[in-house]
Amino acid sequence: MVKSEEGITAKKDENFSEWYTQLILKSDLADYSSVSGCIVFKPLSYAIWENVQKVVDKEFKKIGIKNVYFPLLIPESVLSKEKQHVEGFTPEVAWVTQAGNTKLSEKLAIRPTSETIMYESYSKWIRSWRDLPLKLNQWNNVVRWEFKHPVPFLRTREFLWNEGHNVYSNKKDLEKDKDAITKIYQDFLKNHMALPSILGKKTDHEKFAGAESTYSLELYLPNGKAIQGPDYHDDGQNFAKAYGIKFLNKDGKEEFAYQSTYAITTRMLGIMFAVHSDNNGLILPPRMAPNKIVITPLMFEKDEKILDKAKEIHKSISKYDPILDERTEVSPGWKFHEWELKGIPLRVEIGPKDIEKKQVVLVRRDTGKKTSVKIKDINKNIEKELDDMQANLLKKAQKLLYDNMIEADNLKDAIKGIREGKIVLVPLKNSHQAEKILKEKTGGAKTLNIPLNQLSVKNKKCISTGEQADYWVYVGKSY
Amino acid sequence: MVKSEEGITAKKDENFSEWYTQLILKSDLADYSSVSGCIVFKPLSYAIWENVQKVVDKEFKKIGIKNVYFPLLIPESVLSKEKQHVEGFTPEVAWVTQAGNTKLSEKLAIRPTSETIMYESYSKWIRSWRDLPLKLNQWNNVVRWEFKHPVPFLRTREFLWNEGHNVYSNKKDLEKDKDAITKIYQDFLKNHMALPSILGKKTDHEKFAGAESTYSLELYLPNGKAIQGPDYHDDGQNFAKAYGIKFLNKDGKEEFAYQSTYAITTRMLGIMFAVHSDNNGLILPPRMAPNKIVITPLMFEKDEKILDKAKEIHKSISKYDPILDERTEVSPGWKFHEWELKGIPLRVEIGPKDIEKKQVVLVRRDTGKKTSVKIKDINKNIEKELDDMQANLLKKAQKLLYDNMIEADNLKDAIKGIREGKIVLVPLKNSHQAEKILKEKTGGAKTLNIPLNQLSVKNKKCISTGEQADYWVYVGKSY
Repeated sequence: MVKSEEGITAKKDENFSEWYTQLILKSDLADYSSVSGCIVFKPLSYAIWENVQKVVDKEFKKIGIKNVYFPLLIPESVLSKEKQHVEGFTPEVAWVTQAGNTKLSEKLAIRPTSETIMYESYSKWIRSWRDLPLKLNQWNNVVRWEFKHPVPFLRTREFLWNEGHNVYSNKKDLEKDKDAITKIYQDFLKNHMALPSILGKKTDHEKFAGAESTYSLELYLPNGKAIQGPDYHDDGQNFAKAYGIKFLNKDGKEEFAYQSTYAITTRMLGIMFAVHSDNNGLILPPRMAPNKIVITPLMFEKDEKILDKAKEIHKSISKYDPILDERTEVSPGWKFHEWELKGIPLRVEIGPKDIEKKQVVLVRRDTGKKTSVKIKDINKNIEKELDDMQANLLKKAQKLLYDNMIEADNLKDAIKGIREGKIVLVPLKNSHQAEKILKEKTGGAKTLNIPLNQLSVKNKKCISTGEQADYWVYVGKSY
Repeated sequence: MVKSEEGITAKKDENFSEWYTQLILKSDLADYSSVSGCIVFKPLSYAIWENVQKVVDKEFKKIGIKNVYFPLLIPESVLSKEKQHVEGFTPEVAWVTQAGNTKLSEKLAIRPTSETIMYESYSKWIRSWRDLPLKLNQWNNVVRWEFKHPVPFLRTREFLWNEGHNVYSNKKDLEKDKDAITKIYQDFLKNHMALPSILGKKTDHEKFAGAESTYSLELYLPNGKAIQGPDYHDDGQNFAKAYGIKFLNKDGKEEFAYQSTYAITTRMLGIMFAVHSDNNGLILPPRMAPNKIVITPLMFEKDEKILDKAKEIHKSISKYDPILDERTEVSPGWKFHEWELKGIPLRVEIGPKDIEKKQVVLVRRDTGKKTSVKIKDINKNIEKELDDMQANLLKKAQKLLYDNMIEADNLKDAIKGIREGKIVLVPLKNSHQAEKILKEKTGGAKTLNIPLNQLSVKNKKCISTGEQADYWVYVGKSY
C-alpha cells in the first residue's frame, strides 16, 4: 500500500517512459525482481493475464486446439537441427550447464520457444494422414536473454505466452489455419483489449527465423512507436524437413507435413496499459478488468446507515463481484484517487443525500463522467456504463492509431512522417538492401508488415532504392 | 493412434512398474522427451492437470489467496540466504551459467521452489500489520535435478505445481491457515480424485528444509509403497528472519512475520492413474475425466439410421460434451478397447435392437456393468452412473489403503508389516537416531507422518531405541 498511496508524478505526453514505469509500479501491476530483466507479476496483472488465457483458450478450443506441456529444457543437439531457427535464437539462449555439483555432458537451453523439442515428438507421433491435423498449444514461460534495456511487460527476459504448433497435410488447410488464428487474435485485441491492430505479412527481411512467412498484428504506442503484438508463422515444410515430420497420404505415399506456430505474449498487457491509461493511473477495458466496480460509501467516520445501504447495493450487484471499500482511516477523496490509480472501471458512490433520493452516483474511470441512477435501476445502468466505456476506449485507441497512419510514395515524405512518430505506408522493393537503406535514411525505421489488401504498386518506385516497388508496406520506428 | 491400438501386456499385480509405464504410454497420457527425466504432458494428462488447477484454485480464491508470477531464475546469492533451505535444495539445482555466448557474472538457479525469490519481494512489500495477511500463490513449473530413476508423473526432474506462500502477523492465524489449506487438499483428493489420504505432521527428521513443521498427506500405491502427496509447511519465523520480513504491529512495534508454504504437484496425477486403473487401461474418476462419455454406434459399416439416432442422443446429452465415435474403419469391439484404454468413464452403446426398444446401453468403465436405459431417461441415468462410479472408486481406494494399514508396538511386528508392504503405525522416539535405526532394521522404511489425533504413548517403547516413545507415527517403504 505504501507505494500506491502516491500518485503518478510524470506526464504521459511529456515523459512517456517515466510515466509508464511509475504506472506499472504505482498501480500495483508489477515489481522489479532481483534478476535483471525479469519482473514479478503482482495479483492485478496476473489476473489480467489469466483473463487473456481464458478468452483466447476458449476460442482455440472451438477450432480443435488442445493444450499440452513440453519440457522447459532443450538439449543443444535438438535445438540446433533447423539452421536458420537456431541462428535466430542462440544469441539470446540461457544455458544450463550444471546440475547440483555435476557438470552436464550436454548443455541444455531454457526454451526460447519450443519448435525444436515439440517437433522431435511430432516426428514420432505423426505417421499417417489420419493423425492430421494435429493442433497443440502450450501456455508457458520462455526465456530470451536480450541485452536491450528491459521494460516491464514490453521487453522482459522471461515472459509468458501461448505457443501454438499446428500440423496439416496440405497447404490449403494451413491457409485456413492462418485466417482462423489471426482472426482470433485480432478479434481478441479489439473486442476485449479495446486495441485496434494492423494485420499484415512480414517482409522476408523481418520474418521469423525458420518460417516461410510471418504474419503479425502491429499496434501503436502513445510514444510514437509501433510495436508488434501476436504473430503467426507459416512454416511451410521447413521444420518438417529438419525434424522429419512425415506422413503417409491417402495414396500411401510419404509426404512432409505443413506447419504453423502462433503466439500472444504478456507484452500485450504492457501495450494495453500504455494505450488506455492516463496521468491519474491505470485505465482498463472493463472486459479485461479483474474487478470492474468499487463501491465507496461517502463517510468520514463509520456511518452504519450508509454502510448498510452500501452493503445492500453490494448484494444487489453481486454478479459483478464488486469491491466494497469500508475503510474509515482514509477519506473518500483518498479512496477515489487510489481506485483510479488501480484502474477500477466504475465507481459507485453512495452518500447521505443519495440515500434520501434512493440513488447512487456512477463515476466512469475513463471520462470521469458522473451519472445519478436510481438504486432499483442500478444493474442495467452499470451494464450500460461498462459497455459504453469498453466502446469508448476502443474508439479512442482507434483514433490514436488512425491519426498516426499516413501514406507516402517518396522518401522525403516518409522521413518527415517517421520523424513525427507516424506509421507510414510506402512502396518498397522486396530486398534486404531496400530495408537497410530505409533504416539508415530514416534514422532507424523498419518495415512493420505488408497489409493483406494491397493497392497497386504499378509505376511506384521503391522509396529506398528507386527501383520498381514490389509492395506497399508499413514502416515506422518500432519498439 | 499407432501405440494406443495395442493394449497393456503387463499385469498390474504381477509387474506394477512395467504395467504403469505401459499405462502412461498406451493410454496416451504422456511421452518421454529428449531430456532425461522430463516428460511431455499429452492433451489427456494436461487437461486433467487443468482440472486440478481449476478446482483447487477456486477453493484457494474462496479463502482470499491470489495468484502471481515470479521469475523462473534465482540468483545464487538470493537462493543462499536461508541456510537449511539452501542445503536441502542445492544438490538438485539446475544452474544457468551462460546467456548467448556470455558467461554470467553470477550463476542463476532454475527455481526448485520460490521461497527465496518471493521473500525478497515480501520483505519490501510488507511494512505494517495492515499489509497482512498476504496470501499469494503461483501455478508454475519447477526443476529438481534428481538423480534417482525418473518415472512419469511420479518422479520427474521438471514438474508442475502450485506453490502458495502466505504471511500472517501471528501464530494463531497461521494455525487456522494450516487447517484450511490441508482441508482443501484432502477434500480435493477425496472428492475429486477419489483418493483417501493420511494427514499428519512430519517428524523433525523428515520435515522440509527451512520449515518449523511440515504437514503431509500420505497416500498408498498398489505396489505396496507409501507416497507423499500435497504438503503444507509451517515456516514459523524462520524465513522472515532470514529475509527480513518485518511489520509494525498495532502497538507500533516491529515484529517478524509468520509464514506458510503449500503445494500440490503433478505427481498426484500419477498416483491417481496408478490407484484406479486396471489391466485394460486407464480408469479416471468421472469428476477428473476431461471426457466423461463416449457414444459408440454399433455398426460395422456406415448405417444412417443408427448414426442419426446416435447424433440425436449426442445432442440430448450435450451438457456432458460426449465423444461420438462415428468411425467405420474399426469395429465396435476395437472402439470399446480403445476407449477403455483411454479411460472414458461411461460408454453409451446404441445398436439396431436398442433403437427398436427406444433404449441405449450404458457401460461402466470401472465395473464393466451394462445397464439398458430408456432414451428419454438417459440424462438422469448418466448422472447416476457417473456418481456411482465416483463413489465406487473412492470406496475401492479406501479399501486398498485401510487394508494396508496396521498397528505394531514392537519391532518384530513392524518389520513383518513392512515386508508385506503395509503402512505401520508404531511408537517412536523423536530423534534422528531412532529414524536411522528404523531404516536399517526394516531395510529402508522411513517415517511418513504423525497422525494429528494421537493415541497415548504412555508406557510405549520406541521400536527403534527401546526408550520411552514420543508419538505414534506411520512408517513404511516410501516412493
